Amino acid sequence: MTAPLVGVIMGSKSDYETLAPACELLAHFGIPFEAKVVSAHRTPDEMFKYAESAESRGLLVIIAGAGGAAHLPGMVASKTLVPVLGVPVNITALNGLDALLSIVQMPAGVPVGTLAIGKPGATNAAVLAAEIVGTHKPEVRAKLKAWRESRAADVRAQTLP
Amino acid sequence: MTAPLVGVIMGSKSDYETLAPACELLAHFGIPFEAKVVSAHRTPDEMFKYAESAESRGLLVIIAGAGGAAHLPGMVASKTLVPVLGVPVNITALNGLDALLSIVQMPAGVPVGTLAIGKPGATNAAVLAAEIVGTHKPEVRAKLKAWRESRAADVRAQTLP
Amino acid sequence: MTAPLVGVIMGSKSDYETLAPACELLAHFGIPFEAKVVSAHRTPDEMFKYAESAESRGLLVIIAGAGGAAHLPGMVASKTLVPVLGVPVNITALNGLDALLSIVQMPAGVPVGTLAIGKPGATNAAVLAAEIVGTHKPEVRAKLKAWRESRAADVRAQTLP
Amino acid sequence: MTAPLVGVIMGSKSDYETLAPACELLAHFGIPFEAKVVSAHRTPDEMFKYAESAESRGLLVIIAGAGGAAHLPGMVASKTLVPVLGVPVNITALNGLDALLSIVQMPAGVPVGTLAIGKPGATNAAVLAAEIVGTHKPEVRAKLKAWRESRAADVRAQTLP
Amino acid sequence: MTAPLVGVIMGSKSDYETLAPACELLAHFGIPFEAKVVSAHRTPDEMFKYAESAESRGLLVIIAGAGGAAHLPGMVASKTLVPVLGVPVNITALNGLDALLSIVQMPAGVPVGTLAIGKPGATNAAVLAAEIVGTHKPEVRAKLKAWRESRAADVRAQTLP
Amino acid sequence: MTAPLVGVIMGSKSDYETLAPACELLAHFGIPFEAKVVSAHRTPDEMFKYAESAESRGLLVIIAGAGGAAHLPGMVASKTLVPVLGVPVNITALNGLDALLSIVQMPAGVPVGTLAIGKPGATNAAVLAAEIVGTHKPEVRAKLKAWRESRAADVRAQTLP
Amino acid sequence: MTAPLVGVIMGSKSDYETLAPACELLAHFGIPFEAKVVSAHRTPDEMFKYAESAESRGLLVIIAGAGGAAHLPGMVASKTLVPVLGVPVNITALNGLDALLSIVQMPAGVPVGTLAIGKPGATNAAVLAAEIVGTHKPEVRAKLKAWRESRAADVRAQTLP
Amino acid sequence: MTAPLVGVIMGSKSDYETLAPACELLAHFGIPFEAKVVSAHRTPDEMFKYAESAESRGLLVIIAGAGGAAHLPGMVASKTLVPVLGVPVNITALNGLDALLSIVQMPAGVPVGTLAIGKPGATNAAVLAAEIVGTHKPEVRAKLKAWRESRAADVRAQTLP
Repeated sequence: MTAPLVGVIMGSKSDYETLAPACELLAHFGIPFEAKVVSAHRTPDEMFKYAESAESRGLLVIIAGAGGAAHLPGMVASKTLVPVLGVPVNITALNGLDALLSIVQMPAGVPVGTLAIGKPGATNAAVLAAEIVGTHKPEVRAKLKAWRESRAADVRAQTLP
Repeated sequence: MTAPLVGVIMGSKSDYETLAPACELLAHFGIPFEAKVVSAHRTPDEMFKYAESAESRGLLVIIAGAGGAAHLPGMVASKTLVPVLGVPVNITALNGLDALLSIVQMPAGVPVGTLAIGKPGATNAAVLAAEIVGTHKPEVRAKLKAWRESRAADVRAQTLP
Repeated sequence: MTAPLVGVIMGSKSDYETLAPACELLAHFGIPFEAKVVSAHRTPDEMFKYAESAESRGLLVIIAGAGGAAHLPGMVASKTLVPVLGVPVNITALNGLDALLSIVQMPAGVPVGTLAIGKPGATNAAVLAAEIVGTHKPEVRAKLKAWRESRAADVRAQTLP
Repeated sequence: MTAPLVGVIMGSKSDYETLAPACELLAHFGIPFEAKVVSAHRTPDEMFKYAESAESRGLLVIIAGAGGAAHLPGMVASKTLVPVLGVPVNITALNGLDALLSIVQMPAGVPVGTLAIGKPGATNAAVLAAEIVGTHKPEVRAKLKAWRESRAADVRAQTLP
Repeated sequence: MTAPLVGVIMGSKSDYETLAPACELLAHFGIPFEAKVVSAHRTPDEMFKYAESAESRGLLVIIAGAGGAAHLPGMVASKTLVPVLGVPVNITALNGLDALLSIVQMPAGVPVGTLAIGKPGATNAAVLAAEIVGTHKPEVRAKLKAWRESRAADVRAQTLP
Repeated sequence: MTAPLVGVIMGSKSDYETLAPACELLAHFGIPFEAKVVSAHRTPDEMFKYAESAESRGLLVIIAGAGGAAHLPGMVASKTLVPVLGVPVNITALNGLDALLSIVQMPAGVPVGTLAIGKPGATNAAVLAAEIVGTHKPEVRAKLKAWRESRAADVRAQTLP
Repeated sequence: MTAPLVGVIMGSKSDYETLAPACELLAHFGIPFEAKVVSAHRTPDEMFKYAESAESRGLLVIIAGAGGAAHLPGMVASKTLVPVLGVPVNITALNGLDALLSIVQMPAGVPVGTLAIGKPGATNAAVLAAEIVGTHKPEVRAKLKAWRESRAADVRAQTLP
Repeated sequence: MTAPLVGVIMGSKSDYETLAPACELLAHFGIPFEAKVVSAHRTPDEMFKYAESAESRGLLVIIAGAGGAAHLPGMVASKTLVPVLGVPVNITALNGLDALLSIVQMPAGVPVGTLAIGKPGATNAAVLAAEIVGTHKPEVRAKLKAWRESRAADVRAQTLP
């Protein structure tokens, strides 16, 4: 079995609905990945262990989705040098704006590359991960190129009523 | 020397300007406290150690101030059962709204009692801490009562042009 | 019958849906509590009487939920030294942001420890109340610890598709 | 001396800078008024007494200015049938948006007629008070009409570079 | 037939659902009123005529409801000295925040006493109108007092599960 | 003297600082224009007359700048078929967001083509006006083209430290 | 067949629901138009070609609808001197506020005349386009005038319950 | 001379003040980079050429800073598979919130890894770029590790008054 290159983590099983497009797209690109529930607030020690072992386990990218006071991406980023991408999940009354600001407004020194709120952000986290993995693996970049082209073709084929 | 009953922590020395009113007021109430820089993102392990030892060291309340993607209060709260009060510090372009949402919108299970943005919030964190300590120490409650009364007297004495 | 240690108040019976998790959790922790409708705007005198008698009746914490221009938590706090925790209830077109700001942005001197908007905030108000009560009653702290651990175990047991 | 028809109240002497235009304009319209510091949070009992006595003292309108979690206008309104006009004062990091929402989003039953944030709102509270007083006193309405006309004349006289 | 003392206007028939509580409450208070569709943007001349004739027709208060770039209340206010109360109607993607700001942020000189977004605001516009009418008609004030008391009694009668 | 093709109006002389770039750019493009103070709230009748006469006076575009509850652009648009462009002016505590929403959120039927808040918006109102005038006058389009090219050249010439 | 005078473009076929009112109204006004899917992000080269050819193909106005980080209107505007009108489409968790700001806050030099979020904005883009086309074609202006009058008549005919 | 691995681009020379920390930190990490003014709106063709050539020129990461309707990062991302990181620059009345939303809310398919508003975001773009480059170059990762450790040491050394 291939060791995962991307780790997809989320604070709760209920976030999986939002994160699923990331997993599906990573699979589509042929990128080995793992998906796991890791809660910043309920299992902080496991979160730290996950982050600490990421580099040595060979992860090239971590995708972390979280909602509300979304601490998971930033705290993982504080414990690893593996690039962390954050997906704000819309689970509160504030439409994900709270999660967006909690993820993107990191202080200088500990970055989280933040994507859009919700499923589009999950899709884009996988694409950005594929772009990063693609700097190592030409076959991933090729698949990404093909995927992008098929999406452009979709647009070209769309006709209006 | 008396062991501290309240811990005042902040992510950076530059947050002290905002948190100073909390320290001054705790001193005024005669509550032994400690003040310390503990960064969620730059020194995550020290933060966890601080939180883990809080209960056994006898802290009754932790006041945590942070700005931006303010993770310090929530992460400390995830590692202790000592009540954590959060003060959003206004250090970014978004006027502290990011810090407020990052602190107050904690998921169910791990509370941070959040105060107002900036110095009024710091003052109020100390007052709320004194109210909690006052449930143990009548002399603190008495000082708090006197302080409140002197502030009411101030209002009564104010005259307009 | 045991005298209540926590008072849970709300501006209208319709807020109970949001506040119910607080009551259920207090019961789970074995903390004697009372729940009551007290309206800042419709029954202001009763509100003041409630606040004035809280300390002498032995309440250690008051949890107040309110929506819109949510004045209940802050006005109760202005009349007592018992710690007040505020839960913004989402009842208007503005998704609870109005209630959040009306509760959290208290001026220096009269604190309300504010929790998240809606049910997660109600849950957390009970948890924070239990943390405060737990500084007096080790058996509450023990139950709280067990509850937190069971929630961590839940996370550990979650598997993704 | 004439009994006041309008009461201008504010939570702190420091709010007077914002409320001064209201006082000056009431004086200009020849409306007897009183101006007073009454704090919802620091002197809640005095606030209630002020509100309770307003009707019997002959007040036709109360103008209340407050900032942050601005409870003064709404709480006064809960204790009197005298029309209450609210002026959000900009004293926090959130540019007065918190005060605006805390004043305007009153629940059904207890209205506060809310004006703009800051000095324009203070001016307009006085104008609206004059409109209400003017339904009783034609001489006030006449002065208001003249004032409005002089302002229109100002606009007509303005020339651009 | 009695001449109306309050005019209730709105920009579109579809706003009536929001404004209906105002009409019902005015009827309950025995205040003669008229309700009419007057559009600032589609029938600007009729709007101006409505405003110009308001004072001479004996209106004591105008209640104007509008959504989006809600110009109706402010433009009517620019053409009359009759007090204008504004009700933000929630008809756009922005949850009524656009209407609220368009109504409340009037420049100095032309006030609109603004109420809460939606039905609570409509109710409160009627209450505030009744308070103003009540400064002329003791029987209206008496009905208002009774109505407020019955609402307080409602609260006192509410029991929780 | 040439009749103006573009009318630039604003609610107050103090808005001219923001609108000046529009006037300067229209002059640069050789487009005859007029600039005038016309207040929606202080001189509503003059505003209507201005709008009513715009088409017959040969105006091709009206640029209207306003702040706060910015009614000028929308009300002018309700009274003419001449295209109206709106510039939100930043004059309140809310950073121009109120003016932006008051201008852009017009109901179906009466459009205002809205530009950015402040001076960039004023510049762009003139550019958009020139684009519209340019559909009639090739010499204006030519000047516009040259202006755009010179700005691109500026970018190309910029070097970083 | 008549060459189109107005181009209606959108980033995705799914935006058509929002843009349909624009197309219907242009048809009603007898303005020849084309409607097309052109994606800024998926088919950037086609977007540039569309913009580059707009002037020579005789387009007088381009209407561009987009949601989220809505780059289509602004990027088309950067490549043509044909007036561009932008319609924010509400497709994300943020209710179209993201699209509104992404479209309206263009830097000085490249304007997009922005309309309201969603269908009202689409309607208004068509009206504003008709106003611009109407400066060339009196018959369009006549139809627009009749349409506006019929809408005023609608208002006049509306009666309330 | 070494070919650049990171491209730092911005819409205007005036953005350099915000982006400078990114350049300084890349230099500190020994990562060859280039910095250039490329405007999405004023020089769109150059922008596309820059993006098209990025991969073949060997860039591993592009950092793009922009303010207002910040289209530069997203448009570059639409034309390359090189990972693009976006830095919202605070240049408008809206404190950078417009730039943040314009950059982060990209539609599915074309990601921009977004950092915080302003200089902290610029610093973090460089750190994240270094993390990505570090997956190729152990010496960069080592420098990054040392830099992080020195920042943790700074925190540990901070003492409060």
